[in-house]
Amino acid sequence: MKQIESIKAFGGWLNRYEHQSSSCHCTMTFSVYLPPQAATGKIPAVYWLSGLTCTDDNFRTKAGALRYAAELGLALIMPDTSPRGVAVADAPDRYDLGKGAGFYVNATQPPWSAHFQMYDYVTAELPALVEANLPVLPGIKSISGHSMGGHGALICALKEKGAYRSVSAFSPICHPVKSPWGEGYFGAYLGDDKEQWKAYDATELIKAGHTAIPILIDQGTNDEFLAEQLFPQDLQAAYAEHGATLTLRMQEGYDHSYYFIATFIGEHLAYHAKALTDPH
Amino acid sequence: MKQIESIKAFGGWLNRYEHQSSSCHCTMTFSVYLPPQAATGKIPAVYWLSGLTCTDDNFRTKAGALRYAAELGLALIMPDTSPRGVAVADAPDRYDLGKGAGFYVNATQPPWSAHFQMYDYVTAELPALVEANLPVLPGIKSISGHSMGGHGALICALKEKGAYRSVSAFSPICHPVKSPWGEGYFGAYLGDDKEQWKAYDATELIKAGHTAIPILIDQGTNDEFLAEQLFPQDLQAAYAEHGATLTLRMQEGYDHSYYFIATFIGEHLAYHAKALTDPH
Repeated sequence: MKQIESIKAFGGWLNRYEHQSSSCHCTMTFSVYLPPQAATGKIPAVYWLSGLTCTDDNFRTKAGALRYAAELGLALIMPDTSPRGVAVADAPDRYDLGKGAGFYVNATQPPWSAHFQMYDYVTAELPALVEANLPVLPGIKSISGHSMGGHGALICALKEKGAYRSVSAFSPICHPVKSPWGEGYFGAYLGDDKEQWKAYDATELIKAGHTAIPILIDQGTNDEFLAEQLFPQDLQAAYAEHGATLTLRMQEGYDHSYYFIATFIGEHLAYHAKALTDPH
Repeated sequence: MKQIESIKAFGGWLNRYEHQSSSCHCTMTFSVYLPPQAATGKIPAVYWLSGLTCTDDNFRTKAGALRYAAELGLALIMPDTSPRGVAVADAPDRYDLGKGAGFYVNATQPPWSAHFQMYDYVTAELPALVEANLPVLPGIKSISGHSMGGHGALICALKEKGAYRSVSAFSPICHPVKSPWGEGYFGAYLGDDKEQWKAYDATELIKAGHTAIPILIDQGTNDEFLAEQLFPQDLQAAYAEHGATLTLRMQEGYDHSYYFIATFIGEHLAYHAKALTDPH
């Protein structure tokens, strides 16, 4: 991997890297915040998955998270939301399919399957790359995300049992098989067999017994996508039925924006820091 | 004035307003963050002046300042950096003149003089409008800014004696009469008589005896514009010569970006909060 940018922030360094991805078969870009503590030893990492239309830039710029990471001694790993480049398939008239809309799944259908292998990228390739090249503690990681990335964080943590110490999400797409966003991408990436879709749906994963990890979710009550796309109540019902632990905080008056994330990201990072540093 | 947006953040509200400006003779947009304390009483205000190419959006999105404002009980008033609209003169091939580059001066030369009256707008019209319509304490205000906006904050506080309780700046253009940016706009906005330029130059104002207010400046040592455009050492020399108080902190390794602002904005807002709430 090649470092292409480095900016000092909160006593640490915000770096950007490029590398040739063996999962996505293209050049992938990601950002990493290394807090001051990384100068003297290996530290735990929180992976952040962004939402539709984002790149690795949105969270680092808008979330106000670097300050907390510096205080808590956490590395932040911020991947892109899809493969990129001229060779990569796209749906230029849609914001919810193709570039910027990887949905953190492994596509099985052409033309998407050639590059859209974001599940493998995020859960396996990227952590291996980061742990081999940066001062992070191997295997000591948590995951969080927003909207499409909240969905991504949930499915990664539910499916990869034991891989993440903790998981949280902001405004996640909790039940994509029944949301318009989900229907719009599942068919394209995975084909028409809806049973295949359930392998990438947090609510369906819980129904199928993937209940080992507690979940923290913040959801704004004034979120413009809440009623039609997100369905946290479905996740809550599935959790209740299966005796698992879900902390769903409905935050009065907040919307779907990064200002909502900024308001509560400190609490999420403290939640992850506790899980990452407690004896395990 | 008309509210055109309202977003909940850190328990308070980030609002955007439009109004017809009597100074700039066009519709002006500005943002205001009202912390939770504004719901129950009037609070002090910090005005933030942004840099070249910015609008009212950059600081609210990137600086991570809302959290501190919520903790400290400060309103943040965030104007645009120039007049806007089809009737407003521009230099479309230049980022340092015209729209997005008001430099917080009152232009005297056509075509700029018709709308570019940012000094009056920021020091008089906007505070009067804000104090008449929002829960801020009349006259209890401070000012800060970045780069071009740092220059703006300095000249406003130096020229308007007693109007601001405190002033600070990030990476300000300290001596614009000798910087390429300054030469590029002063001639256009103020004409060829360089004596006129000195009325909007912090270093020259101090030399002329405007030394009443202490100044806090943070300047990154890795700032790509430091050597050619900013000249904090000139301001420092002028201050030393005139027995005034300047705290110039050279911050090792930081650049000109919003990550630098984000790193130290909490300390700046705490500095202003102290000045705004101390008995005066």
